Amino acid sequence: MCLPGTMETVRENGASVSRRGLLAGGGAAALAAMLPGEALAQKPKHRGRVVDLTHEFTTDFPVYTPPQATRRTIATYNPDGYHAQEWTFGEHTSTHMDAPGHFIEGGRFVTQLKPAELVVPIVVVDIAAKARKNADAEVTPDDLKKWERKHGKIPAGALVAMYSGWASKLGTPAFTGKDAAGVFHFPGFSADAVDELIKGRRAAAIGVDTLSLDNGPSTTFAAHVKWLGADKYGVECMKNLDKIPATGATATVGVIPWQQGSGGPARVLATY
Amino acid sequence: MCLPGTMETVRENGASVSRRGLLAGGGAAALAAMLPGEALAQKPKHRGRVVDLTHEFTTDFPVYTPPQATRRTIATYNPDGYHAQEWTFGEHTSTHMDAPGHFIEGGRFVTQLKPAELVVPIVVVDIAAKARKNADAEVTPDDLKKWERKHGKIPAGALVAMYSGWASKLGTPAFTGKDAAGVFHFPGFSADAVDELIKGRRAAAIGVDTLSLDNGPSTTFAAHVKWLGADKYGVECMKNLDKIPATGATATVGVIPWQQGSGGPARVLATY
Repeated sequence: MCLPGTMETVRENGASVSRRGLLAGGGAAALAAMLPGEALAQKPKHRGRVVDLTHEFTTDFPVYTPPQATRRTIATYNPDGYHAQEWTFGEHTSTHMDAPGHFIEGGRFVTQLKPAELVVPIVVVDIAAKARKNADAEVTPDDLKKWERKHGKIPAGALVAMYSGWASKLGTPAFTGKDAAGVFHFPGFSADAVDELIKGRRAAAIGVDTLSLDNGPSTTFAAHVKWLGADKYGVECMKNLDKIPATGATATVGVIPWQQGSGGPARVLATY
Repeated sequence: MCLPGTMETVRENGASVSRRGLLAGGGAAALAAMLPGEALAQKPKHRGRVVDLTHEFTTDFPVYTPPQATRRTIATYNPDGYHAQEWTFGEHTSTHMDAPGHFIEGGRFVTQLKPAELVVPIVVVDIAAKARKNADAEVTPDDLKKWERKHGKIPAGALVAMYSGWASKLGTPAFTGKDAAGVFHFPGFSADAVDELIKGRRAAAIGVDTLSLDNGPSTTFAAHVKWLGADKYGVECMKNLDKIPATGATATVGVIPWQQGSGGPARVLATY
């Protein structure tokens, strides 16, 4: 971690280097500790590919709770010389983050998450087969164990994303699965899986390709309460989780740093 | 470029690989061409550091043109059980992208930019010394040539960012530099520098730590018109450009894919 004000930095050959860091010696680790910015838990590895995990932000994107997003044109090429829109929406619309402060009073808002928490290894837990049979399917502890038997331990600081196949249902009633009684039906994380992730693993975030971290019919929101209560964040309404490897990709969770944001729209891009 | 529907992919050891790619042979390049997602112009290199180039999105962030952003609380911990806000703002508020369609009728909107255009090498052209003497200072062709003499050719697909020292003025009248006549005073790109970047170089984007790609008093918006007219994008109101090396970092320009967005808020993170 760079501590601004405690060292003097100079620009030399394009790199900011610390005079004190160089003078004090202590080798590469000491120098790295003095570099500006935050250290990532893992250096991303690249084959030079990028995959967009973000839905288009549209006015007809279904929301868990109102309001529905709206937009209006506020400038036009003629006569203004340029085109621009104004947007109005709730923070939890389209592909977005849930920060700890969404459910936890006193929990961190999006502006309080460190940038290093937003550039993370992403792993994909594929429950599409059981979700095809049961719209209320959940990621269970057993799904996590099966994943680890196949792919190794979930990396520290990872975003653990559920692939249920739901992103492709967007634009159809099956995306929310709302029944005659107004109850949603879509997959999510079980409370037990969240407990497992909190207990034995050091994941930073969970993600889903559905409207909520909890499955549709949940009334207790146990996954939300437990996960955000552990000071970790969630990402909802992701797409293209079947277009990245189950492990080995890096996700950049580009949440806008909304003032006092309990969450909010994020551009999520995976590189691998 | 992956062409969905033209190949069959299987999941094996966590990586999506193409059967046709493997069977057809043609080596690593052929396989890479068949991988999901888009190829990046350059594989990012990492020392495992991340720097946030994004200002907090606040209701008092100065805008070039109204409206000023507003927010209101729409759910509270008690009695709703969770906290959430609603936002209303113009697309060109805080750290944000200008897409070609902002000034160019028929130009691309943010949703039409390819993900590979959003993960790019970032280079920093430091004009802070002259900007301290002249608030209307501009990046000139000479500044670009001087940069290239020191650091080598601007990489293909780069985001060329102006560091003028203006980000640290946020919260003071000097950030907009508005004078008694209502004219802004802050640095920007000259039309000639933009011509240079379009002509001889293959940069994808330009960025500034001020309110506009053009300097404050501009009335012709030549940098906007030329650059967006060349089907390239801009990023305005960046910060921390003095916290990354002049060359060698990668910027992820996490613009939300706003429907028909002429631009819009973006989380910009640099890794190096």
